[in-house]
Amino acid sequence: MGGDLGPRSVVPACIRFLKKFPEAELKLFGPRTQLQSLIDAERQPQLSGRLEIVPCEQVITQNCNPLHALRHKRESSMALALQAVAKGEVQAMVTSGNTGALLALSRSILGNIEGVRKPALGKSLPTERGSCFLLDLGANIDCSAEDLLQFARMGIEAQRVHTGKRDLKVALLNIGAEPHKGTEEIRQAAELLEWDAKIDYAGFVEGHDIFTGVVDVVVCDGLMGNVAMKSAEGVIRLMGQKAFTIEKSGYFKRFFGQLAIKLLRKWRTQVEPARYNGASFLGVKGNVIKSHGGASSEAFYRAMITAKECAEADLAARVGQAMAQA
Amino acid sequence: MGGDLGPRSVVPACIRFLKKFPEAELKLFGPRTQLQSLIDAERQPQLSGRLEIVPCEQVITQNCNPLHALRHKRESSMALALQAVAKGEVQAMVTSGNTGALLALSRSILGNIEGVRKPALGKSLPTERGSCFLLDLGANIDCSAEDLLQFARMGIEAQRVHTGKRDLKVALLNIGAEPHKGTEEIRQAAELLEWDAKIDYAGFVEGHDIFTGVVDVVVCDGLMGNVAMKSAEGVIRLMGQKAFTIEKSGYFKRFFGQLAIKLLRKWRTQVEPARYNGASFLGVKGNVIKSHGGASSEAFYRAMITAKECAEADLAARVGQAMAQA
Repeated sequence: MGGDLGPRSVVPACIRFLKKFPEAELKLFGPRTQLQSLIDAERQPQLSGRLEIVPCEQVITQNCNPLHALRHKRESSMALALQAVAKGEVQAMVTSGNTGALLALSRSILGNIEGVRKPALGKSLPTERGSCFLLDLGANIDCSAEDLLQFARMGIEAQRVHTGKRDLKVALLNIGAEPHKGTEEIRQAAELLEWDAKIDYAGFVEGHDIFTGVVDVVVCDGLMGNVAMKSAEGVIRLMGQKAFTIEKSGYFKRFFGQLAIKLLRKWRTQVEPARYNGASFLGVKGNVIKSHGGASSEAFYRAMITAKECAEADLAARVGQAMAQA
Repeated sequence: MGGDLGPRSVVPACIRFLKKFPEAELKLFGPRTQLQSLIDAERQPQLSGRLEIVPCEQVITQNCNPLHALRHKRESSMALALQAVAKGEVQAMVTSGNTGALLALSRSILGNIEGVRKPALGKSLPTERGSCFLLDLGANIDCSAEDLLQFARMGIEAQRVHTGKRDLKVALLNIGAEPHKGTEEIRQAAELLEWDAKIDYAGFVEGHDIFTGVVDVVVCDGLMGNVAMKSAEGVIRLMGQKAFTIEKSGYFKRFFGQLAIKLLRKWRTQVEPARYNGASFLGVKGNVIKSHGGASSEAFYRAMITAKECAEADLAARVGQAMAQA
C-alpha cells in the first residue's frame, strides 16, 4: 500500500510476475475492494488462483514515525505481510512503504538473527563490470567497527545470492585510500576485516569506486551509504533532465537528437535505480525487500525479482549460517 | 606540480587563460626547466611577459601525508604558492596536488579567518536549474552543530560569488526530511540554522536533492560531502562507460550510435566534474582553489575560472566579513 503509487504500481507488477513465473504464488495485503478492482482491470482471470488478497484496512502512511508504527499499526498491510513471513506462509515480502516503519516492524515481528547486532539495508548497484553490493543504506546511523564487520559478512551472502559468485572482494567506504583516513570506527573496522580469514578484504575505497567494479561488496554506516546511493540517483535523474532540455531547445540536429535520446534512455536503464530496485533488509529472520518509494510498476517488478532470488536461496537462512560460523 | 598529469595539464590551461583574459597575470611554481620546456612547446612567446616561473625543486607527492608536508615540505611548489597568497603577491592559488597537504599547509601558512573554527572545502555542483554549493567535501571528519552553522555561512558567501544571487536557500544533508532523522549534530545544527536570522534555512535534504536545485547551499560533514560528490562522479563515469560498451557491441544503428555518443558527450559536459572543477578552501586567509587530481587541461582551466571569480570578489575577505557580522 506504500510508495508514491501504492497498489497502482504493485498490481501490474504482480500480474507480470505471475505470467513470467508459472510456479509463483503471491499474497497481496491491503484493502480488498481497492486491490480487487485493480486486479480486475488487468483482465487476467486465469491468474487469480495464484494471487490471493489478504484483506486489511489499516495502512502505514509515508510520514508515520517508526515508534507510532510499532505501537499502533500492528494490523497494517505491512505488519500482516511481515507476520506471514514470520509464520513461513510466504518466503519473502516486498514493500515500497515507509522505510523507518518497515525496519522497526521487521525487527519486532521477525526478530534479529542470532548474533546480529544491527540488521542493515543493502542493495546491488551497477558497475562497469557487473554489480556491487552496498550496505548499510540508512538503517543504522551509529555503527561500531564490529557492526561494520557484521555488515561485511551479511553483504557477502547477499551478493553471493545475486551474482552466483563465491569469491568476493570486500571494501570499506572512506574518503581516501590511505590507512590514516576516516573515522576511528572505519579504521578499527579495517583492522577487524584484515584479520578475518573468511573475508577477502581489499582496503578502503572512495565513493566513485562503488561504480567501477573493483570490489563486490562495499561496507559503510547508514549515513554514508544513504548519501552515496541517493547522490548517484540524483545525478542519473539530472542527466536525463539535461538531455530533455536540449531536446526541446530546437537543436538543428533534432532528428538525430531524438535517436540519441532513445539510445540514452537505453543506456540509462542499465544504471537507473529502477533496474537495480529492491534493497534487502539483512539480519532479520526472514527475507524482507524494500522497493524504492518512487517505484514505477517496472521498478516494483525488479524488486520482486530480487525478492524471488532471496527466497529461492533463502538469503536469511544463509545469513544465519554465516553469522553462526563467524 | 600535483595531480595525475602535473604541469602537462596546468601549462596549456595557463596559456588558454592568458589568451582569454588579457588583464590576467600568472605565476607558475615548480622546477624551472620542466615548466619552461612545456611553455616553449605552446609557442606563444607574446604571452611570456604575463607568465612568470617561480622556480622550486621540492614537490609534494600524492601519498605524502599532511604532517610530513607540514614539517618537511616548506620549500615545495605548493608551500611557496601559498606564501605568495599570504604576502598578497597573488590574489588566488590553484593546485591539483595532494588535498591533505594543501589543507594542512593552507591552515599553517595562511591561518584561519578570525572566528572560523574549521575551514571547509566546498564546490558548486550542477543542478536542474543552475548550481548548488556543497560543503564540506572532506576537510573535516568530525563536525559539531556549530561547525555546520559556520559552513553554512561560508558556503553562502561562496555561492553568492559564483552565482551573483544574493538570496540563497540553505539545507542540511541528511538521510530523510523528517526532523527526527540523522545524528545529534545534524539535528542540533538544524536548530541553530532555524534561529539564524541571516540564513534562509530550508530544512533537511537527501543526496538526490543536491542535484535538483531545490536549494542553493547544502551543508554536511566532510565524510558525507566527500561520499556524495565522489558517488556522483562515479555514476557519471559509469554512464559514459556503458555508452562506450554499447557502441563497440556492433549495434545495427551504429551510425546513429556514433551521433548519439557525440550528443551524450555534450550533455555529459554539462554535469561532469571537469566543468564544475575547482573546490574552494573556505575559512583560511586567502583564496585557495583545489582542482580535481585527475583534472585534464580543460578541467584545470575551469578551476582557474573559479579562482578568478574568487579573486575578483575576494571571497576570503567576504567570508571574513560574514564571520565578523555573525
